Amino acid sequence: MRMYDLIAKKRDGETLTKEEIEFIIQGFTEGSIPDYQMSAFLMAVYLRGMTDQETAWMTLAMAHSGDMVDLSPIQGVKADKHSTGGVGDKTTLVIAPVVASCGVKIAKMSGRGLGHTGGTVDKMEAVPGCQTSLPRQQFIDQVNRIGISVIGQSGNLAPADKKIYALRDVTATIGCVPLIASSIMSKKLAAGADCILLDVKTGNGAFMKTLDDSIRLAQAMVAIGQHNGRKVAALITDMDTPLGSAVGNSLEVAESMEMLRGGGPEDLRLVCRELAANLLQLAGKGSLEECRAMAQDAIQSGRAFALCKEMFAAQGGDTSVLDEPSRFAQAAHSRQVLADQSGYVAATDTEKIGIASVELGAGRQTKEDVIDFAAGIHLYKKAGDAVEKGEVLATLYANDPARFDAAEKTFRQAYTFSAQPPQTPPLVLARVTEDGVERF
Amino acid sequence: MRMYDLIAKKRDGETLTKEEIEFIIQGFTEGSIPDYQMSAFLMAVYLRGMTDQETAWMTLAMAHSGDMVDLSPIQGVKADKHSTGGVGDKTTLVIAPVVASCGVKIAKMSGRGLGHTGGTVDKMEAVPGCQTSLPRQQFIDQVNRIGISVIGQSGNLAPADKKIYALRDVTATIGCVPLIASSIMSKKLAAGADCILLDVKTGNGAFMKTLDDSIRLAQAMVAIGQHNGRKVAALITDMDTPLGSAVGNSLEVAESMEMLRGGGPEDLRLVCRELAANLLQLAGKGSLEECRAMAQDAIQSGRAFALCKEMFAAQGGDTSVLDEPSRFAQAAHSRQVLADQSGYVAATDTEKIGIASVELGAGRQTKEDVIDFAAGIHLYKKAGDAVEKGEVLATLYANDPARFDAAEKTFRQAYTFSAQPPQTPPLVLARVTEDGVERF
Repeated sequence: MRMYDLIAKKRDGETLTKEEIEFIIQGFTEGSIPDYQMSAFLMAVYLRGMTDQETAWMTLAMAHSGDMVDLSPIQGVKADKHSTGGVGDKTTLVIAPVVASCGVKIAKMSGRGLGHTGGTVDKMEAVPGCQTSLPRQQFIDQVNRIGISVIGQSGNLAPADKKIYALRDVTATIGCVPLIASSIMSKKLAAGADCILLDVKTGNGAFMKTLDDSIRLAQAMVAIGQHNGRKVAALITDMDTPLGSAVGNSLEVAESMEMLRGGGPEDLRLVCRELAANLLQLAGKGSLEECRAMAQDAIQSGRAFALCKEMFAAQGGDTSVLDEPSRFAQAAHSRQVLADQSGYVAATDTEKIGIASVELGAGRQTKEDVIDFAAGIHLYKKAGDAVEKGEVLATLYANDPARFDAAEKTFRQAYTFSAQPPQTPPLVLARVTEDGVERF
Repeated sequence: MRMYDLIAKKRDGETLTKEEIEFIIQGFTEGSIPDYQMSAFLMAVYLRGMTDQETAWMTLAMAHSGDMVDLSPIQGVKADKHSTGGVGDKTTLVIAPVVASCGVKIAKMSGRGLGHTGGTVDKMEAVPGCQTSLPRQQFIDQVNRIGISVIGQSGNLAPADKKIYALRDVTATIGCVPLIASSIMSKKLAAGADCILLDVKTGNGAFMKTLDDSIRLAQAMVAIGQHNGRKVAALITDMDTPLGSAVGNSLEVAESMEMLRGGGPEDLRLVCRELAANLLQLAGKGSLEECRAMAQDAIQSGRAFALCKEMFAAQGGDTSVLDEPSRFAQAAHSRQVLADQSGYVAATDTEKIGIASVELGAGRQTKEDVIDFAAGIHLYKKAGDAVEKGEVLATLYANDPARFDAAEKTFRQAYTFSAQPPQTPPLVLARVTEDGVERF
């Protein structure tokens, strides 16, 4: 087999076989296929596409390029959830304990913040003492004992994906559905769960800007699961505005705990309920309606919150901050951003709000940056809200006061106002399962 | 300017500016743009195409990546001719002296044999003593003195093309009209002629297998000339069968001289007359009909043959072999290939005949191979000819008798027979000029 012929085949719009795709992924990972051939191939894939079957084979080959996590020592159904990345997206901290407290095992590997979006592992580390890097056996034992563990990605998970992504990043082959889908799903397949619920964000703060693109990506990922014997479904959720009111690590943990105690902002409550219910249904816990009630009960009974604290405690975390968020180390400085006009918030540029939060210290501008867990933004007004001139739009928090000016400037650019109330999209725009697409 | 953005622009089917194309070609030639970005770009060009204007800019940028030969010290119109490569294609040795003897200057740089196709420089070197590498000044002086010089490519001609071609060769981006056209024409622009006649070969022995593809390539090259102030026209000529009867270096020189003395095979005579007439017309010597008569007269009067000998003499060649081809060093061995059935030659696989000739020693299998000038094939039967079982199809020549078995095997595979006379295509299938396409 020659890489040249496989590039030509894809260039001509033909369909590759399983063996051909394995040859490409293995060869590129090992280094026998050079970057310049792989980048020509990736551009051919970008412009010619891949069938669902080809994408599924590629994803599996990428997953097998490194460790395949074996979760079989864990009894019962193992569930995972993945978000394509948002601002203020703290849903994992809520739905993981909700689902686990309903008897579905959560043995989950999460990521760190990337660009303007946050990551679950960073948020967990905002809880003093919490370990997100556990030995494999300890991770499995914890899940068998209490039903849940969320840790950072460890080991050699899908190294092919890392290498391919680095090349796509410099050859303008990022925005291609089969390539995005295989990148996400290769790590999910390697991480070993039986059921995977995807939260595909759509809108100005998301990677996918339009609903149609988001649905196409979700369909590709559901198909990958189907071809590889995993149950996968996806919700398309709104990222035209941040989720909830808190953006920043300890602020988001506090908001998540508020939710697990039965409170929290309405948009976050609704999205978490739908995500949890869909994951429970995927895990075979009943109809969607039954699963909604189950998720509701896990919160109202306090079981989910108790389990969440148990998880943090098992991983070394100081759970007193979960009960009393005021015990989190507070930011030394804050600044209020006031509305300079009356009317309605017409739209928020969510990516800009994410960037403002990074500028305050809540994320990394370079890989070496250390996160300020106390930094972030509390939003009081989001898209659709009425506002009076002089009212507080948001409070910015930082330990380094030199960061406020730039962050406030970015933050203000995110807001546009109108005289009339704007149309805001539904929070959950569509649901994609093996049975098809439902738009809401 | 960032290469990433330019890859994305071409990927999305947009048109690049002159400055953007220059940035790409300069950056890649200098090494600031890495192979993996260039190969993604080339694949995007392959699948998205380029406008005539983009192709013209790219060709000019490639020409300017190295030396631009200045032919202005030569008085009068300077003409060049290029063939896309064939088997038995010795037309340059005929039409260059014909055209020069009609007063159009020929200051031409030719190539060596490539794969199964021969090259003019190798053929010239079959004449003992002939130099194909002259100092620039001597080359120009010779053209000013006698009107003609044909030498090998020297200096740093279009290094961008060399580097891009090497990358295309391993990334399945060879067969793309704007890329082929710019590769050929960058060297032609750099070589400095005012008028360029292209002989685009079509058929099983050519790079372009179909007439439509050949016409598209010719149109692209004519457009490049038009955009860059050069007069360019193209004839599409048949390469479903070798041109003339001789394949191999000294055999082809002998056949060319036979033609210049008024003889030679009819197919070669016709193609040479059309090529010469079209180049003369391009150089402003009159109507096509007048130019045909002029070319005819140059041969019948003996002027073209005399000038050809003068050129070889000026370049150090022993012209006695031109008068008496029997004085060429003869191959030590020959083998006749007899027809094993009666009927008609239905078709010849011209590429296979070229390969058989290389196997006899007439070409290079690796870059280091030394050519056996006496090796080659004399064809007695070509596509369309009637043949009796036991008649001689061809004589193979070689100095190394160990080469015959493989070469004969390849040669025999090239022939298919039929009971009825086959349809053979016209020798000149189309003519492409700035005014459009004429099909014959």
